[in-house]
Order: sequence, then structure tokens, then C-alpha cells
Amino acid sequence: MQQRLTIIGVGLLGGSLGLAAKKYLSDWTVTGCAHREGSLIKAETLGAIDARTLDPVAAVRDADLVILCTPVSLIDRWLSDIAPHLKPGAIVTDVGSTKQSIVEAGERTIGGGAFFVGSHPMAGGSRTGVDSASADLFDGKTCIVTPTDRTNDDALKKVEHFWRSLGSRVVRHDPRVHDRLVALVSHLPHAAAAALVAVQNEASLDLHGKGFYDSTRIAAGDAALWRDIFAENRANVAGAIDRLVAELQTFARSLRDGNDAGIEQWLTQQAKTRGTLD
Amino acid sequence: MQQRLTIIGVGLLGGSLGLAAKKYLSDWTVTGCAHREGSLIKAETLGAIDARTLDPVAAVRDADLVILCTPVSLIDRWLSDIAPHLKPGAIVTDVGSTKQSIVEAGERTIGGGAFFVGSHPMAGGSRTGVDSASADLFDGKTCIVTPTDRTNDDALKKVEHFWRSLGSRVVRHDPRVHDRLVALVSHLPHAAAAALVAVQNEASLDLHGKGFYDSTRIAAGDAALWRDIFAENRANVAGAIDRLVAELQTFARSLRDGNDAGIEQWLTQQAKTRGTLD
Repeated sequence: MQQRLTIIGVGLLGGSLGLAAKKYLSDWTVTGCAHREGSLIKAETLGAIDARTLDPVAAVRDADLVILCTPVSLIDRWLSDIAPHLKPGAIVTDVGSTKQSIVEAGERTIGGGAFFVGSHPMAGGSRTGVDSASADLFDGKTCIVTPTDRTNDDALKKVEHFWRSLGSRVVRHDPRVHDRLVALVSHLPHAAAAALVAVQNEASLDLHGKGFYDSTRIAAGDAALWRDIFAENRANVAGAIDRLVAELQTFARSLRDGNDAGIEQWLTQQAKTRGTLD
Repeated sequence: MQQRLTIIGVGLLGGSLGLAAKKYLSDWTVTGCAHREGSLIKAETLGAIDARTLDPVAAVRDADLVILCTPVSLIDRWLSDIAPHLKPGAIVTDVGSTKQSIVEAGERTIGGGAFFVGSHPMAGGSRTGVDSASADLFDGKTCIVTPTDRTNDDALKKVEHFWRSLGSRVVRHDPRVHDRLVALVSHLPHAAAAALVAVQNEASLDLHGKGFYDSTRIAAGDAALWRDIFAENRANVAGAIDRLVAELQTFARSLRDGNDAGIEQWLTQQAKTRGTLD
């Protein structure tokens, strides 16, 4: 049976979702909706969407699944704009990098027989815009879905099935736990990368090698997008920074005290942990 | 005229130097010397050296250029072992990641018509061992040479010419300046990567994406090798950590104070700086 997918916001993630749906879900039709016609026309030209509209009402009234792919700071408003126009049984999800406030807003706003389920596909990178979109952006990546005790179980299973159809591994976490975990493993590395760049000078940057290059790659990411992510998760990120600072201060103390055996033991432990990742 | 190169220590760097010399310097013959015959036999089999010996005296007595590629902690002893047996005009250099103490030892130990010049090729990575050696490891990389007011000018030029022949860009710095700069751009990122791994837990690591993976890659490096590098440069690295900690604490304060405009401005500046690197 034909299913109707509506993507709101057609940048890197929205455009890639459209391309992935066209590639992996042959019985779905995809409608794109955004504030700017330019990106919609590009998305249509690239084959990421079958139809486009600037009108939220037209975009969602027949949709079975709506995915919000706008910047995190705009999600509240889009939720309010579409909520009254969803058909019963429609499911709304998103791709936001933080989840507690988005899921609260989704559950507060979406009702009348429609359902909200939070999603966070761990995909993207430093590129932005629909021009960088790829049908395989989600293939082999982890997607975290964030049910609460208010989440409809069928809607949750359909959202999980959708992400698995695009090749993603699906993991479930409570929205608050999600935000603490991504503060540590995603937002903290971004802050650290930017700080590593900040302490350099012209002469040191001239000597950078592959180590510095790789370890600061994410610092080249879009500043406005990351300002929003940090703002949505400020307490968790600040707490994660406190823990990183404590580790670094312990290391500096070991250096100054000449505790080289302790340093080697600590480095060995981190190398071992890092070596288990793929 | 045929030139004789002796490489002491045939791991990743020594092995790669041999392969590079065989590829780019057709009139050079390469002798390998090490404490363990196993790595010498491997290096010979891989074509990285023409001849091998366990005897430092035999290794260096006819050498025009000797390159110390052993762990930093062993350089002092090798310098003492080879110094009395060098021929007049012989040049000794090294590939150590720190320079002040090595150059002091080199200038104190090497004499009698032979010369010492410090080198630090910014090449390597997380792999170790001669099996990972490559003739093009130094091609396109920066090599820092560290003359002092005691350095022989002809020897300096010959060492610089050698590195350029392998495809490296050569930069000169005073040994003390070198150690401060690499503390910032090379040793600090290693400490930060290890600390980023140290603050994770099983659930957060399960969610890691490409950002965390790339920004912590160097933390998988050899712990004993890095213990030595940190020990040789402890005051500079500890000072660099203090500066990183100060940046991170300022960022955490901006987060807690809701200074999102300041955060965006700071992120924009770092993204711009990082974007200039290649």
C-alpha cells in the first residue's frame, strides 16, 4: 500500500532522507516542505522529493509519516503549524540532535489521533545543504529513538522499522538519558575540538599534522547549528566539560609530578577502549 | 658519488626512511642497525635496507648520514655508542618528537669532526612497526629541523636537502620553540583525545559517530611511546593543558550563563581558523 512521507526542511538530512526513501522504500511517495522555495526546487531536481509545497497544511494533511528536518530552534513552531492538520494515525518524528525539549514539545503539541516519536539519526558531518545529500547517509549508522511512557507503541515500532529500512541500527533511550549520552560522546568532542583550535597560534598551526587535522575536523562545522545544539543541551554539555577538565587536570598533575607510570597506565587504558570502536 | 645512510631503529619511521631513500635517492646505500635482529630481517626482506648489523660500530664507521629512529628514551645511549666511531664529516640526525633535550645530548656527544642536527618529521600515525612502513610516508609532510648557534651550516643544509629529497616541506625552529609549538599542536591533541575517551561510559560509546571516532583516533597510539614523548616535554604539555582547560572553562561558563551569542562568535572564529588548514 502506498505510503506518504512528508519531509519538512530539505537540507543535508532532509534531502538524504528523501533520496534514501526513494531508494529503499519503493512504495512511498515523498513531499518536501520548507520556508524557501530554492532548496525545494534543488531537492526535486536531485530526485529527493516527488512534490514540493511551501504550505504546511497541504504538506501534512495526507501524510502517514512526517519528519521534521529543520534546525532544532525551529521545531517548536513547525509542530504548532502542522499539528491541527494531521490525519488520525499520522506519525510525526524528527532528526534533532537533542531530545528532551523536542519530545516534550512533540508530546504537548501532537494529538487528536496523531502520534509523536523522537528520533536522532547519528549521521551528518561537517557538510550542509541538499547538494551534499546522499541516499546512503543513514546506512550503517546508529539512530536513537526516544520513547517515553506516553509514546504509542505501534507508532514507535513503525518509526523504528522506517529507520531500519534505510540501513540504520536502532537504539532506544529515554530522552533525558539520550541528552546526557550525546553531551558526552557528540557535543563534548565538538567543544574540545574548537578549544584545541582556539589555543593555537600561527606558528603552531603551520606545524599541524594529520593528528591535529583529524581531531579538530568537527570544529569546522556550522557555528549557528552548533550554537542551537549547545543551547538545547547546555546543562549536560557544561557538566561533560567539567568532567573533561578534571581528567585533563589530573593528567597535567601527573606530568608535573613525574608520575610517568601513571601516565602510561592511563594512556594504555584509553588506547584499549578506543581500539574497541569501529 | 655513492652515499652511505645508516638507520638506527627500523620501526615505522626507520623502515619508511629506508624505503624512501631507496625510492628517491638512487646513489645511496642503506644499512640498518637495531637491538633486535627480527625487525632488521623484516626490514631487509621489505627492501628498506641493503645491509643489516647488530653492531653500532660496524653500522656507523663508514656512514655519511646516520639517522636515529629509536624511541626517544633510547637516543642518549645510542649517541654515546656511536659517537667515537663516526668518520670526520659524518652527520647525525634523528626523528624524535621532542627536540630540546635530544639536541643538547647530540651537541654534547657528537664531535671530532662529526656533526649533529636535530630533525622532527611530522609523519607517522597510530600504526607502528616496519610492516606499516611506506616509501611515501614523508612526501608532502612537514619536517622541522632545529639548528642552534652551534650547528654546522653545511651539515644543516645537507640534512634539509635530504628531507626535501623525500618530498618533505622543511621548516626551521629553535629546539625550545619547537618543543613549545609541538606541545600545542601535537602533544596536547593526544592528551585531549585520551581524556575524551576517559570520560565516556559503555552507553555513550555505543552511540559514537564519525565525529568522536575521528577526534579520538590518535588516542589509540602506542602508550609507551607517548609516555616518553610526554616525559620529554612535560612542562610545555602541562602548560598547553592549562590553556586548553581555560578555554573549556570559559565555554562552560558561557553555556551556563546563556551567552549564546558569545558561543556562536567563538565557534565561528574556530571554524574559520580550522577551515584554513589543509
